[in-house]
Amino acid sequence: MGNIFGKLFTISTWGESHGPGVGVTIDGCPPGLPITSEEIQVELDRRRPGQSDIVTPRKEEDKVEIWSGIFEGKTTGTPITLIVRNADQRSGAYDEMRDKFRPSHADFTYQQKFGLRDHRGGGRSSARETVGRVAAGAIAKKILMSSQGAASGVEIRAFLTQVHDIVAPAEALAGFPTLAEVEATPVRCPHLPTAEKMIERIKAVRSEGDSVGGVIECRVRGVPAGWGEPVFDRLEADLAKAMLSLPATKGFEIGSGFAGARLRGSEHNDAFENRDGQVRTATNRSGGVQGGISNGEEIVFRVAFKPTATILQLQATVDKTGAATELMGRGRHDPCVVPRAVPIVEAMTALVLLDHWLRQSAQCGTFKF
Amino acid sequence: MGNIFGKLFTISTWGESHGPGVGVTIDGCPPGLPITSEEIQVELDRRRPGQSDIVTPRKEEDKVEIWSGIFEGKTTGTPITLIVRNADQRSGAYDEMRDKFRPSHADFTYQQKFGLRDHRGGGRSSARETVGRVAAGAIAKKILMSSQGAASGVEIRAFLTQVHDIVAPAEALAGFPTLAEVEATPVRCPHLPTAEKMIERIKAVRSEGDSVGGVIECRVRGVPAGWGEPVFDRLEADLAKAMLSLPATKGFEIGSGFAGARLRGSEHNDAFENRDGQVRTATNRSGGVQGGISNGEEIVFRVAFKPTATILQLQATVDKTGAATELMGRGRHDPCVVPRAVPIVEAMTALVLLDHWLRQSAQCGTFKF
Amino acid sequence: MGNIFGKLFTISTWGESHGPGVGVTIDGCPPGLPITSEEIQVELDRRRPGQSDIVTPRKEEDKVEIWSGIFEGKTTGTPITLIVRNADQRSGAYDEMRDKFRPSHADFTYQQKFGLRDHRGGGRSSARETVGRVAAGAIAKKILMSSQGAASGVEIRAFLTQVHDIVAPAEALAGFPTLAEVEATPVRCPHLPTAEKMIERIKAVRSEGDSVGGVIECRVRGVPAGWGEPVFDRLEADLAKAMLSLPATKGFEIGSGFAGARLRGSEHNDAFENRDGQVRTATNRSGGVQGGISNGEEIVFRVAFKPTATILQLQATVDKTGAATELMGRGRHDPCVVPRAVPIVEAMTALVLLDHWLRQSAQCGTFKF
Amino acid sequence: MGNIFGKLFTISTWGESHGPGVGVTIDGCPPGLPITSEEIQVELDRRRPGQSDIVTPRKEEDKVEIWSGIFEGKTTGTPITLIVRNADQRSGAYDEMRDKFRPSHADFTYQQKFGLRDHRGGGRSSARETVGRVAAGAIAKKILMSSQGAASGVEIRAFLTQVHDIVAPAEALAGFPTLAEVEATPVRCPHLPTAEKMIERIKAVRSEGDSVGGVIECRVRGVPAGWGEPVFDRLEADLAKAMLSLPATKGFEIGSGFAGARLRGSEHNDAFENRDGQVRTATNRSGGVQGGISNGEEIVFRVAFKPTATILQLQATVDKTGAATELMGRGRHDPCVVPRAVPIVEAMTALVLLDHWLRQSAQCGTFKF
Repeated sequence: MGNIFGKLFTISTWGESHGPGVGVTIDGCPPGLPITSEEIQVELDRRRPGQSDIVTPRKEEDKVEIWSGIFEGKTTGTPITLIVRNADQRSGAYDEMRDKFRPSHADFTYQQKFGLRDHRGGGRSSARETVGRVAAGAIAKKILMSSQGAASGVEIRAFLTQVHDIVAPAEALAGFPTLAEVEATPVRCPHLPTAEKMIERIKAVRSEGDSVGGVIECRVRGVPAGWGEPVFDRLEADLAKAMLSLPATKGFEIGSGFAGARLRGSEHNDAFENRDGQVRTATNRSGGVQGGISNGEEIVFRVAFKPTATILQLQATVDKTGAATELMGRGRHDPCVVPRAVPIVEAMTALVLLDHWLRQSAQCGTFKF
Repeated sequence: MGNIFGKLFTISTWGESHGPGVGVTIDGCPPGLPITSEEIQVELDRRRPGQSDIVTPRKEEDKVEIWSGIFEGKTTGTPITLIVRNADQRSGAYDEMRDKFRPSHADFTYQQKFGLRDHRGGGRSSARETVGRVAAGAIAKKILMSSQGAASGVEIRAFLTQVHDIVAPAEALAGFPTLAEVEATPVRCPHLPTAEKMIERIKAVRSEGDSVGGVIECRVRGVPAGWGEPVFDRLEADLAKAMLSLPATKGFEIGSGFAGARLRGSEHNDAFENRDGQVRTATNRSGGVQGGISNGEEIVFRVAFKPTATILQLQATVDKTGAATELMGRGRHDPCVVPRAVPIVEAMTALVLLDHWLRQSAQCGTFKF
Repeated sequence: MGNIFGKLFTISTWGESHGPGVGVTIDGCPPGLPITSEEIQVELDRRRPGQSDIVTPRKEEDKVEIWSGIFEGKTTGTPITLIVRNADQRSGAYDEMRDKFRPSHADFTYQQKFGLRDHRGGGRSSARETVGRVAAGAIAKKILMSSQGAASGVEIRAFLTQVHDIVAPAEALAGFPTLAEVEATPVRCPHLPTAEKMIERIKAVRSEGDSVGGVIECRVRGVPAGWGEPVFDRLEADLAKAMLSLPATKGFEIGSGFAGARLRGSEHNDAFENRDGQVRTATNRSGGVQGGISNGEEIVFRVAFKPTATILQLQATVDKTGAATELMGRGRHDPCVVPRAVPIVEAMTALVLLDHWLRQSAQCGTFKF
Repeated sequence: MGNIFGKLFTISTWGESHGPGVGVTIDGCPPGLPITSEEIQVELDRRRPGQSDIVTPRKEEDKVEIWSGIFEGKTTGTPITLIVRNADQRSGAYDEMRDKFRPSHADFTYQQKFGLRDHRGGGRSSARETVGRVAAGAIAKKILMSSQGAASGVEIRAFLTQVHDIVAPAEALAGFPTLAEVEATPVRCPHLPTAEKMIERIKAVRSEGDSVGGVIECRVRGVPAGWGEPVFDRLEADLAKAMLSLPATKGFEIGSGFAGARLRGSEHNDAFENRDGQVRTATNRSGGVQGGISNGEEIVFRVAFKPTATILQLQATVDKTGAATELMGRGRHDPCVVPRAVPIVEAMTALVLLDHWLRQSAQCGTFKF
């Protein structure tokens, strides 16, 4: 259990790294949305292996197939199933994993939890399962963007601020980056000088058979005040869950985050002001959320990713019998997963926001007393 | 909506700061557990206002009343309702809040979301709603501890590692602190020299009418490998949600956390080894969770709290009409909410862990094929 | 578990027959609804013991108390808790039940399921738990009625069509009975001659220490086409669940029901026609629902209730050790529970309908593409 | 929304009648179950069109494909996806349905609810969507049967007791029919003389271009006392929902059902007795469930099906503009859907029972205090 996400815009994902394919079923999609497989493919292509020379060279086209829920180019309100077939499966490369546990992977815990596992490529624990999330997120994104018109729509932009110890200067990221700025380099950091350093570092690390982690920042603009369902389903709580449900994530912070713990209230509070006839905050240490509900400001959060667990070095480990052994990483892996995680972070953000929009609409938008 | 938490051990909380009381109903509690109101009270007393000279002097006894689900001293398996009556309500102190939005509080967002609000003491957005969480968590904690016997039970220990810029030295917190060590000072930092500095800082800040934030670390030992439900309900994802659902939290990290993003894979990976006949990891940068599932190591995570939003200083804000105005904080507030948040963090941790234990037990423990 | 009902308008009930009280928490109630405890009380008074000379003479005032979620006379959108204290508890009357299982009651199954039970008055299995349903249903009813104005609002009317073998003639119930017609007699059958016979029968049966069952029909008008969430959460499926979740129910049928199985398609189909510019059906064997979705016609369903299990006669049974014994029913019981079940059926209907309204509104009413 | 069923053994179904295929994803299946596609196929073949001369002659092989969650012949505990491709799609046959609403079908309500619809073969409202239920149910059935060994496993047997006005004599169905007895004739009534009459009637009705309804009884043996989650998720409530979620169903009754309403308590109560050292009931008017929880007796319920809505006769209806028109049924349809509904009823029963087993196991089987 645990493979279903969302309360009203609900996704159910399935599939293993080396099975026939991976997929997702969306239940609750509003009817009448014009959507094509090409629009979904755009996001999958951002996540796809082999897209640049700093990611895994695995060749997977990841072509999405629509199996249900879309008729004559429009969503019908019934479940939408999207499937991506697996390809380029070199299962043999994983024979050694049948018995040995890769350090900091999920081999051991899956074995302990279920008593057996599909060891090929990590099976269900492979980041390949995020294909379904990205496909579903593409639809959620389109709804968020188009339903209010492009000008006032909800726009989500994730990008890298850190790779290893290379950190983009805060002032360089002050504005809301454009998609073009993010996509300008394969590392998806909109500050070009930093991006170049990041790429260099990733290549250097890869040449040593090693890997590095990094940080993604995600900003959302256009969310009106009122989304979020306290006390448990606070908007930031559901965003935190969404992000920590992604492979390789180790941390989440919103607004001031951990740095906020070092401030005084008099420094941290966001004063309200009337700006152009609207209640706005002078600063945004809250990160766009107060009391678990969006306040109309930009939503800003960051996600920490650990370095890729697979490294092309000899590592100590144990096998299924508990005997000490060694494992030499091989295969085609990302030396840094963070650039390819950008569309995944955006997809999960879209899924959370759309779900909350629907919830807010149901409870507070259905009746006028 | 959003006031129900947990899938199998489900809690539903209700109540406002200045209504008749706050409460919680637990659905799904295993039957036969011996539990008394005194045992629940112990945890509520750790959360209670007025417990020390560094917290709010509000006088609330917070006496728990059992209304259902416990018969002749044992849980019956039916819903358990626990109620704490509100007392010492000086609603008049909040008259100004009827029209003015306190900076970095939820007044504005509740007003925008619902179109009206109970302004007294923050109503439902008050941290007073955590009373129900702590009461329910006390039962969850007892199940986690006692079901396997005290020696091998699941033990949860939260404590402060930081107040403002005062940080406990890592080496001072290497072991698993005892409850007595944590409770030795009102600030709940088990490293005494640091605790003293923290207390001093909190008092200094309070004297200036200001507030500070801080960081709580939570460790859990005794959790066997196998808890956690990927891909969405990863153990760390549900913990992150639980923590970010608490008032004033801005960040969550597990294991290496944000610092892990600065490491290489060769530095970060936790090598498996056979220790005393058990598969263990040599290090614990994973924080006790791999692939969303507990691996048998200590679970370690940290939560960032912002400084208390209420400060006894004049702040700029707007009123319900959008007109600029000022607000002078008054009343009896915590200059630092973090010490009182320790039992709340523990309670939420217990709720998440017990829920996952039940889920793991259902799916993987019911059948032997 | 199993004490939470509804997806968007969610109720969580608790309480035992002889504990301090029973209650309900509603999560997801739309904000801004004016509601008073008196309005809720009206429905509770229809369910209350001692209301007439054909029901149990137990004296319980069942006064509702509002503990949260309503401020200055209006719902705030936060959880609403309603509590009714128990009174007139003669627990001693139930001492015999501690060890003996009453036939066709839930004593045995609760004991088997949970390993222990609150035996007093049936504990949680007592029909007293429906107090919370009726209280929550009163709010749902008001929303259904008032949100579109009284003229076009959704109106729910349940009434008895059968007691024992006394059946109201179909033609006598052709129209939509008024509330006054239903409430004209304590038996709540709007056909007066039948009602009188029912009352007579109930009294006769009671005098023999026996009991009888009956059938309730429920009709709903004003529901527009479009409510219901196939394939699983069909409107009739959720109604069926709601009804079979009530104590003493043994059957549910909608529209033509079991009699429909005896018809041919050419007899059963409801032809569409254009009536006053609206698509309507010429007949209503569908019972207002097609493909799981309301079609704008009157929703019509029936619920079968078994005779009260408690009878004032000596019955064979076993005790907790499995030894054969006898049990003499005593105490103050309804010889026929069906008249008091009328407001309960209406309440559950209201809860189901409102939940589906909110769901339909969220998915199909939030966006225009 | 509404396409997800079950709390712990959760199925999510998708697919339209004339899209590429239909499918189901199971989340929460216990790991380690040996299962083959052939075992699943057995149940699908019982549901398949074209299986006999009294059902629709459509040729659909309905071959199940396993896409995930089963590795080397065993369930892995991760989501299981089963897909059946659609074949023999004569979409052109449905062109008329694009604009006209078929009487007593879901064309009108889907159009009203969603504003658009896939009209081909009823789209999502087609009974073809039950393919996924049957496939998932096959796995649930195997778990129910095999987990306790064949002798003591939970065995589910559904069969026809009525077609049109032909009713099998109660005494002929006193025992628990064998699968062979049920499958002996295509009409699936284990009483041969009745079955022959039913077949004759179905053929006669078909020759007139008409259709008939019927009743299925389902019995379950081997369920221990203790399954069911009052107060809302009573076992019979979840069974009722499961049955009323099936296309063409109009009623559900358990045990004495509607006939029970005509009895006195002294006639209806099931006396407890000690039989072979076990607490049993002398009669079974409760239908195996008391207070919403199984009592260890045979679970017995009945489901009413209306006559097939599609008839090969000219019927009055309206088109999308609301104009009166006529529609001539054509195509290849079942003159009576009830025989093919037998495996579907069994599948839904299995899904409900397994889900409740898991729930009972979690709450009441995890801990010993």
